[in-house]
Amino acid sequence: MDIEDLGERIIAGDRRALAQAITLIESGRADHRAQATELLEAVRGTGREAIRIGLSGTPGVGKSTFIESFGLMLTGQGLKVAVLAVDPSSARSGGSILGDKTRMERLSRAPGAFIRPSPSRSHLGGVARRTREAVALCEAAGFDVVLIETVGVGQSETVVAEMSDIFVLLMAPAGGDELQGVKRGIMEIADLILVNKADGDLKAAAQRTRSDYAGALRLLRKRAQDPEGFPKAICVSALQDDGLVEAWDEMRALIEWRRDEGHFAARRAAQAQSWFTEELRQGLLARLDAPEARAEMERYARAVAEGGITPAAAATEMLEKLGR
Amino acid sequence: MDIEDLGERIIAGDRRALAQAITLIESGRADHRAQATELLEAVRGTGREAIRIGLSGTPGVGKSTFIESFGLMLTGQGLKVAVLAVDPSSARSGGSILGDKTRMERLSRAPGAFIRPSPSRSHLGGVARRTREAVALCEAAGFDVVLIETVGVGQSETVVAEMSDIFVLLMAPAGGDELQGVKRGIMEIADLILVNKADGDLKAAAQRTRSDYAGALRLLRKRAQDPEGFPKAICVSALQDDGLVEAWDEMRALIEWRRDEGHFAARRAAQAQSWFTEELRQGLLARLDAPEARAEMERYARAVAEGGITPAAAATEMLEKLGR
Repeated sequence: MDIEDLGERIIAGDRRALAQAITLIESGRADHRAQATELLEAVRGTGREAIRIGLSGTPGVGKSTFIESFGLMLTGQGLKVAVLAVDPSSARSGGSILGDKTRMERLSRAPGAFIRPSPSRSHLGGVARRTREAVALCEAAGFDVVLIETVGVGQSETVVAEMSDIFVLLMAPAGGDELQGVKRGIMEIADLILVNKADGDLKAAAQRTRSDYAGALRLLRKRAQDPEGFPKAICVSALQDDGLVEAWDEMRALIEWRRDEGHFAARRAAQAQSWFTEELRQGLLARLDAPEARAEMERYARAVAEGGITPAAAATEMLEKLGR
Repeated sequence: MDIEDLGERIIAGDRRALAQAITLIESGRADHRAQATELLEAVRGTGREAIRIGLSGTPGVGKSTFIESFGLMLTGQGLKVAVLAVDPSSARSGGSILGDKTRMERLSRAPGAFIRPSPSRSHLGGVARRTREAVALCEAAGFDVVLIETVGVGQSETVVAEMSDIFVLLMAPAGGDELQGVKRGIMEIADLILVNKADGDLKAAAQRTRSDYAGALRLLRKRAQDPEGFPKAICVSALQDDGLVEAWDEMRALIEWRRDEGHFAARRAAQAQSWFTEELRQGLLARLDAPEARAEMERYARAVAEGGITPAAAATEMLEKLGR
């Protein structure tokens, strides 16, 4: 594969090249991994910078409808929008939250939009690494907004927040009691809570829920990276296209403030450093997957099981064999 | 330090040597680590085998009282009992669940007993590694029973179950609704549930709670490693020394059955293999802690933050420098 050419086509905005490149970074093969690293290096330094929006919401809050309506509003303004997903459960359940483009049929047909389902890996770490790289490729391809969607499974929300410029939580109207069910950790990383379905019979409930969340957010925190009034909770109706412009205005206002204060760049730099450390750790551990290492590990594991050597001594010996 | 001599003294049952050895394995220094590995290898193959009992219970269930009463019953029978703790929170909170021997004053003065608080490490992984090694040392020192205590913080119960022959859950009498609050994963690893405080005013509530748990356990599982009737729920009163003999009988019956069926040895072999794999992974990652590696990482992290190289390319380069 001609990596230099692939990189040039991505930068030129070629969607097929982008899709092909994402398939490459999702591959587990060592030669593909080396090519992926080369490709990422080749598309670095375009100076292009998308707004990376992390979006989480449990099933039933209307996430697909929101992404479609919000995405269409943005593409309608002439913006280019990429939608990626982090869904560690997709491998197990057999169906990705974004495996089906028909879920957002109108958006998938919009000329400015690009939708990519979550890679089918069972480990959140694996999904996270590939999604981070896909974000970088989408940015190099000139997208203005990259939406990274997740369903709140385990640590996936934290992982998505760590690759986003802002983190948005989509919620459904709820009774006061249910407020307690929201994981405190998620409230703490949310920059903006959108209470969806603020239409018809649910409108009043949505407004009460918004007010409850706004109160909870005020109690929970005030971070140095937040301007006055943030984190914020507002009502939207994805079904009726209500509040979407306001939501986008709030996101941009927050991003602008963070840019002006230097938090935006600092956050991106810190994220890149964490990503580097994680790559390094995973790369080091991958040495244990090499065929020779595997065979050696199996020999030691047998000896350990039979009581012929302690686990600690076996690990020490094997580490010496792996070389310094 | 003369490791061979230390090993011989441990095998001879010298408590001070045992305490000194546990301090050695808890040390983070590289030379201490090498000595610890040597020591574990030196005391391997005594043929001694303790019954390793994992015990979990949230604060308030009377865990200290139970361990003291249960431990005194065992030492009263002439058995030697070691009590270790896995408490990842001890470093943060400043007070270990077992930091204070006065908590089990009578047991700590019993000639057949040995009590050791949790090492002060903030990472559960670190506490787990050291506790596994301390268990091996106690076993070599001739203890008949090793009690590994934990409070249910995060994954600590799973970690303790993975180093135990049987896993016991200590519970307090509760209303029917509270049953749902018990984490399903914990119920699934419990071999025996002891409902404590079955005395005085709480006796009837304890009996109802026992019956609820017994029902839940029957619904939850039937494993190949379980004889008829297990997992089981029984009532005890640590305060009045009620049910302790029965609890010990149940534990021994389960252990005997597992020995006869070959599950006991198979479980220990599998645990030793997991421990080896974990040691190997941690040992490999520890290479990043060496001063040269740290300096190199910092250089790359700066370049990554400045956008001079992608995280993936920086990781690849650094991995090459670390050597194959």
